[in-house]
Amino acid sequence: VTESPIADVGGFARLDVDRLARTGDPEVVLADGKTPEQTAAVLRRLSSSHPERAVLATRCDEATRALCRDALDGAAVDDVGRTVTVGTLPEPAGLVVVVAAGTSDLPVAAEAMTTVGVFGARAELVADVGVAGLHRLLAERDHIAAADAVIVVAGMDGALPGVVAGLVGVPLIAVPTSVGYGASFGGIAALLTMLNACAPGVSVVNIDNGFGAAVSAARIARRAAKPL
Amino acid sequence: VTESPIADVGGFARLDVDRLARTGDPEVVLADGKTPEQTAAVLRRLSSSHPERAVLATRCDEATRALCRDALDGAAVDDVGRTVTVGTLPEPAGLVVVVAAGTSDLPVAAEAMTTVGVFGARAELVADVGVAGLHRLLAERDHIAAADAVIVVAGMDGALPGVVAGLVGVPLIAVPTSVGYGASFGGIAALLTMLNACAPGVSVVNIDNGFGAAVSAARIARRAAKPL
Amino acid sequence: VTESPIADVGGFARLDVDRLARTGDPEVVLADGKTPEQTAAVLRRLSSSHPERAVLATRCDEATRALCRDALDGAAVDDVGRTVTVGTLPEPAGLVVVVAAGTSDLPVAAEAMTTVGVFGARAELVADVGVAGLHRLLAERDHIAAADAVIVVAGMDGALPGVVAGLVGVPLIAVPTSVGYGASFGGIAALLTMLNACAPGVSVVNIDNGFGAAVSAARIARRAAKPL
Amino acid sequence: VTESPIADVGGFARLDVDRLARTGDPEVVLADGKTPEQTAAVLRRLSSSHPERAVLATRCDEATRALCRDALDGAAVDDVGRTVTVGTLPEPAGLVVVVAAGTSDLPVAAEAMTTVGVFGARAELVADVGVAGLHRLLAERDHIAAADAVIVVAGMDGALPGVVAGLVGVPLIAVPTSVGYGASFGGIAALLTMLNACAPGVSVVNIDNGFGAAVSAARIARRAAKPL
Amino acid sequence: VTESPIADVGGFARLDVDRLARTGDPEVVLADGKTPEQTAAVLRRLSSSHPERAVLATRCDEATRALCRDALDGAAVDDVGRTVTVGTLPEPAGLVVVVAAGTSDLPVAAEAMTTVGVFGARAELVADVGVAGLHRLLAERDHIAAADAVIVVAGMDGALPGVVAGLVGVPLIAVPTSVGYGASFGGIAALLTMLNACAPGVSVVNIDNGFGAAVSAARIARRAAKPL
Amino acid sequence: VTESPIADVGGFARLDVDRLARTGDPEVVLADGKTPEQTAAVLRRLSSSHPERAVLATRCDEATRALCRDALDGAAVDDVGRTVTVGTLPEPAGLVVVVAAGTSDLPVAAEAMTTVGVFGARAELVADVGVAGLHRLLAERDHIAAADAVIVVAGMDGALPGVVAGLVGVPLIAVPTSVGYGASFGGIAALLTMLNACAPGVSVVNIDNGFGAAVSAARIARRAAKPL
Amino acid sequence: VTESPIADVGGFARLDVDRLARTGDPEVVLADGKTPEQTAAVLRRLSSSHPERAVLATRCDEATRALCRDALDGAAVDDVGRTVTVGTLPEPAGLVVVVAAGTSDLPVAAEAMTTVGVFGARAELVADVGVAGLHRLLAERDHIAAADAVIVVAGMDGALPGVVAGLVGVPLIAVPTSVGYGASFGGIAALLTMLNACAPGVSVVNIDNGFGAAVSAARIARRAAKPL
Amino acid sequence: VTESPIADVGGFARLDVDRLARTGDPEVVLADGKTPEQTAAVLRRLSSSHPERAVLATRCDEATRALCRDALDGAAVDDVGRTVTVGTLPEPAGLVVVVAAGTSDLPVAAEAMTTVGVFGARAELVADVGVAGLHRLLAERDHIAAADAVIVVAGMDGALPGVVAGLVGVPLIAVPTSVGYGASFGGIAALLTMLNACAPGVSVVNIDNGFGAAVSAARIARRAAKPL
Repeated sequence: VTESPIADVGGFARLDVDRLARTGDPEVVLADGKTPEQTAAVLRRLSSSHPERAVLATRCDEATRALCRDALDGAAVDDVGRTVTVGTLPEPAGLVVVVAAGTSDLPVAAEAMTTVGVFGARAELVADVGVAGLHRLLAERDHIAAADAVIVVAGMDGALPGVVAGLVGVPLIAVPTSVGYGASFGGIAALLTMLNACAPGVSVVNIDNGFGAAVSAARIARRAAKPL
Repeated sequence: VTESPIADVGGFARLDVDRLARTGDPEVVLADGKTPEQTAAVLRRLSSSHPERAVLATRCDEATRALCRDALDGAAVDDVGRTVTVGTLPEPAGLVVVVAAGTSDLPVAAEAMTTVGVFGARAELVADVGVAGLHRLLAERDHIAAADAVIVVAGMDGALPGVVAGLVGVPLIAVPTSVGYGASFGGIAALLTMLNACAPGVSVVNIDNGFGAAVSAARIARRAAKPL
Repeated sequence: VTESPIADVGGFARLDVDRLARTGDPEVVLADGKTPEQTAAVLRRLSSSHPERAVLATRCDEATRALCRDALDGAAVDDVGRTVTVGTLPEPAGLVVVVAAGTSDLPVAAEAMTTVGVFGARAELVADVGVAGLHRLLAERDHIAAADAVIVVAGMDGALPGVVAGLVGVPLIAVPTSVGYGASFGGIAALLTMLNACAPGVSVVNIDNGFGAAVSAARIARRAAKPL
Repeated sequence: VTESPIADVGGFARLDVDRLARTGDPEVVLADGKTPEQTAAVLRRLSSSHPERAVLATRCDEATRALCRDALDGAAVDDVGRTVTVGTLPEPAGLVVVVAAGTSDLPVAAEAMTTVGVFGARAELVADVGVAGLHRLLAERDHIAAADAVIVVAGMDGALPGVVAGLVGVPLIAVPTSVGYGASFGGIAALLTMLNACAPGVSVVNIDNGFGAAVSAARIARRAAKPL
Repeated sequence: VTESPIADVGGFARLDVDRLARTGDPEVVLADGKTPEQTAAVLRRLSSSHPERAVLATRCDEATRALCRDALDGAAVDDVGRTVTVGTLPEPAGLVVVVAAGTSDLPVAAEAMTTVGVFGARAELVADVGVAGLHRLLAERDHIAAADAVIVVAGMDGALPGVVAGLVGVPLIAVPTSVGYGASFGGIAALLTMLNACAPGVSVVNIDNGFGAAVSAARIARRAAKPL
Repeated sequence: VTESPIADVGGFARLDVDRLARTGDPEVVLADGKTPEQTAAVLRRLSSSHPERAVLATRCDEATRALCRDALDGAAVDDVGRTVTVGTLPEPAGLVVVVAAGTSDLPVAAEAMTTVGVFGARAELVADVGVAGLHRLLAERDHIAAADAVIVVAGMDGALPGVVAGLVGVPLIAVPTSVGYGASFGGIAALLTMLNACAPGVSVVNIDNGFGAAVSAARIARRAAKPL
Repeated sequence: VTESPIADVGGFARLDVDRLARTGDPEVVLADGKTPEQTAAVLRRLSSSHPERAVLATRCDEATRALCRDALDGAAVDDVGRTVTVGTLPEPAGLVVVVAAGTSDLPVAAEAMTTVGVFGARAELVADVGVAGLHRLLAERDHIAAADAVIVVAGMDGALPGVVAGLVGVPLIAVPTSVGYGASFGGIAALLTMLNACAPGVSVVNIDNGFGAAVSAARIARRAAKPL
Repeated sequence: VTESPIADVGGFARLDVDRLARTGDPEVVLADGKTPEQTAAVLRRLSSSHPERAVLATRCDEATRALCRDALDGAAVDDVGRTVTVGTLPEPAGLVVVVAAGTSDLPVAAEAMTTVGVFGARAELVADVGVAGLHRLLAERDHIAAADAVIVVAGMDGALPGVVAGLVGVPLIAVPTSVGYGASFGGIAALLTMLNACAPGVSVVNIDNGFGAAVSAARIARRAAKPL
């Protein structure tokens, strides 16, 4: 019985240790498609490369979170947002408000909020303000308008980001979620709604990609707080 | 040179003269896919079958409208909604409010308004109240709430019907339009948004099908005005 | 180990206690994406806000239904339609006939029937009348024609609503179901068929959305029975 | 200036002169994508290869039909079905009934009827019997039941073949047409409806492919009339 | 705790006992979406309605097959094709050859073969003759040419039916299967290939629908063997 | 002959004159779906409402541009980007670099550049730096890194934004264009590529929506230049 | 009236003059999306950069071909394949056989053949050998087997490449074409067929991309003829 | 109880023992859709037909790999690439470099590497060089340029093959993987990116089809190393 040709390779991953220098933020681990051991190993190596900056893994399944809780000193594990953070968060600069349409959108919002912190901004949550009851959103209008960047998370019809963009002029990142059934097609309906938003100033990330939205939003907020 | 086998057939259409008895409303002509002469001929025959009820043709191109204007006595031609109506409208019973998101949605709204009249209800228009400027819609809330049925016409993100359905409990038919570009996919984005509306009480018809929405809405309004 | 940022939030949901005033019907709980405990808690709070009106949860999985059966006094649980109802149903006004094409469409029909009752109308079922044996449907024609609104539930080819709409002039809401295989694409085929129905007067809701169809139908029936 | 490398090739087409021997029917010319001159040339060569059997070109645009009318002796040109036939039709064996849902489906029905004749069976048309007015179809039930094979042509919701298949046990080929708008997606809706027909015994060909349906139906009818 | 409104209905299904008279063949049970008990009950009732004709259930899962094996006297259960047959098969008239491209296509072929028998024709199998090794197919050419109808079952690229249709003139029904991965999209690739087959005379049924192909093929073969 | 019901409406549009107060920027005219006269009239009214801020119309066809050139004093017309601007541009704050992959992407880049100016930031172009020749992009790396926000416009494979996001940490908005053929599906391929970009920090707007990207980018840049 | 911001840019394109050094072949001009003048200008500049190697433009419309014929000395224009070549072709090394399924596929085959020559190999054509008449293909089997690389061009069902790959072991590039109608979806059906080919050794390029297939094939053939 | 009609067939598979003669390589077993016993039996028979050439099974699930490990002498089992190889590998001729974008793409890369060996070439791996950190790829440029053929494996945005094709002129086969989430649609996004790659010389295989890419690449490499 022979071994996999991959097993001959010295390592399964090449760390992009230069990324902090190029982009101002260290590499993040996408745990999906990695074994718990691989994720923990990469986190440990990234953390030792950047002892001064917290490092992050996203989309961690239950086994990965359990292993990291046990094996990584000081790991902050979020079971809702499925993230693992290791190290000290940077001092936050700028405010990102994360708006979630419904209760089912909270896991994606949680991933976004943790990521905002790791990327150096402050995150505040406005939850359950879907367009079916507009008064809930209108009551939060000034809260949202005070942000440096806003992330709007919504599934089903995905209508919330366009409505928010009509109320405030804050840079806005929309995150469609896979919440819904039937013709929501796992988030495609919400994605298309957001891409076609009537109000200008909406840009969109992949379905359930709270992480990606947070990277953009944190960078915007940081610059707004302390321009380069 | 032989003739088409179709040409041997005595006629190209079988009128459903029984439909008025079965459903309470006469047959309507879909002009798309018919020659101007065919449309005019069918209108004339339907009109003579139902001299007491106006008859309608929808999706009439310019040539069909021109021919009907010339050839059919008393034809009412709407160049925006692309309809031709022949005969006396029934006394309206019940009110249908037609809400259009933007200027480009007006042709579909016009088709709906004419059809509402032919099917025996009264139609009123609320135009250009898209969700990018919510105050325009909120100002019309009571107007819409007073209707027996409401039709909401919107393209691009198609978010308007869900927002309206959160404001009023009136039976609501949503019409996605093909207005938009790129990932609006000719109205698919708006259609999906409407099918996934968070607020309950939204039902949907085919893209650009102002006619179909109006048939449903007029029937609802008539019953609400004078229950059977 | 830190906690989820979401856990800091006082609550996971904002009840739309104003919805009854705006739309005439209280909020309904979509159990999908909520834990059994969350669903039961929201039901309890909604019920205490509206002690005079029954409240409803839909798409309740087995665990949610079991918890509600145990924990909520007077909860009516439907294992076929996967609904939980708490409180006294309103006196029904108007008749909604629910037509189901096949045996596999009954769960969606059951969700619709329960919802019709919660939203204040009376529901009657006509089951297993698919178009492959038209005589079964024709025998029920007068039953359907006597309704104030009709819901037609069908999977596979989704042809039934268009055929019913050719037989009666009652306002009709079509519900495509995910019943089928292969090129039914989880209900897309039936959805498209219904959107393209040749007979006018068909409006459509999301795949498997018996709830949404029932909200529309009950509102139509109530108005027809006792006009505002 | 050099010439196209294709121009060096002796000819643009290889006739499949052996097809009559293998399958019992000669090759047919798909004029789409060929110049009028190419179509006429291939028809002439096929005709001289099979002087005893009529040869056929389908999907002939106006220029091709005009050229064939002028240049080919005894060419039978059908402007509705867009076909050109050259030579004597075989003695028909067996009956194919072609059922068309609406007026706009007649061009596809015409292509089918001509092809049935070229492939050796007799064709009869039943037109404008869409499911919106079932009585029109029920009146033709015995006519259809007497056929050896039936072709059902329908656009929009494509519901007709499934209904016919519930009424008769005759082998049935369904042809979706591109008639419709919006979510008919150029015939996809009708195609999916037919593939998902509840009544068994429906097989389907490509959108607008009256020719293909006719080849199958004629072969079925011929065998039923005079078994091999 | 209340009961489902469906449970109040006397029965979950209306048998189409008239179908044999209308179409020449009794109703068949689609077990998918039914409980084992429902399937067995319907089979028993159909069998007592048609004691002289075998009745069939398709898409029976393991529990349904086990129950039928135990509870239905003389039930013939096929674990490959997932069918249950009850009663005596009719005397076969006409030959249907079932051609399967690969080993993975055999379950669909088995469903087709059993159905052909129940619908009154004889079935023979030609297996594992995919187009990657044409000589295997060419060796069976005369076998296939001798059939009254041919069913071709193929997944992945779905190329086999078009190749067979170029070799013989027998009426041909193509069945795409969900065999494949990646861009086969659960059988869509094979379905599209078959709808676009270059050789005329190919009609197509739904993905994995061996049953539907067999109904068509058996009807064709019966008529060819003993014309009405 | 009657008139369109729409013609009875006092106006075809409701200006959102409050938008500047809510969002910091005035309404923009989407000329698509409007007549040249409608576009010119709305521009004129917007301009008189906001004499101190330039107003913009996008997606102006040739006739609209010609009319605006003639009829609107001081109109700036861009035939490449198909925009019309009326009024004095605001003093720019912050830098937006617009990166275009190929020559065919320039019209979308031009629309973005004009919009950036109208929304109060400065725009610089980096053209023809597609990933097929990386050295062209690498030579511009520092130029891009110096921006406050970057817009990356690309059709075909849409790979450029992900590569840029790996090189710099500037907030990045990606615009897929409809440039390409075959399986580019009018920009869908590029859109999907961008949504799935491996490098974090990419958010995406609708296909060909240079305008929307510019609104987001200008708002980001303005805040970075002079924090609120 | 202002000018387009793009017009301020010194040039519309950056030539990748380094590509010959990196990849062994010079840059090629995709004329789609360029004006005739832009295409001619780029060809002239590329030609002067690589006087020893012929340069190529593809997808040239009629106006571009006319201008190049007039304005570029020694331009070889192919009206079938829509290419323009300037300069001396390299001495061919290795043989590429281009197999085209039908007459309508010849323009794509022509583009491939010209490109093969520009990229340094010899091209031979085998035309009109679709799978509907296998004997035509089998007669060319040895011709194809003698090639160093083979390109197979097919539309409609796209079945030909898989059949060829079962007959010979030559490296094979498949090109789906947009030839077909209805469910061919502009070449998607053929593309999917080729991606799912049962016979191994088939790789695929974009729809109608004869150019891309030729680049791959010529590189394979050159290496086979004179290994590096 | 009867048996499946398939069980009457002497065997479930026809080996294509002639394939080695026709194409230079023996048949390979696709284990997907076969039982472990079927896969082992076919491997054993193929191995005895070709004792001098190793035979291969791909897509072997855990049960199949376990059975083969136990039951087949000298079986080489790769748990990462899910392959089983039996027999002596041919002496390798030519070099294939397999480039994998990320860690999650390694199983597909492993399948490719094993297959390259079975088909007679040498394989080397370059792992984790995604475009988010270009310097990792640039460092391997000369390694890749030295290959006779290159396979590039990537999921998510699928951008890597186009970038590699801009750096080297080696024949390149791209393999999209199903790695990703949301709008990656199981590999469709990566597939489309690769089909639309801006750099010429990229051909593509089915999603996750490392095997198919390797067959093409090995044949190219063998010919480059020792031309026929």
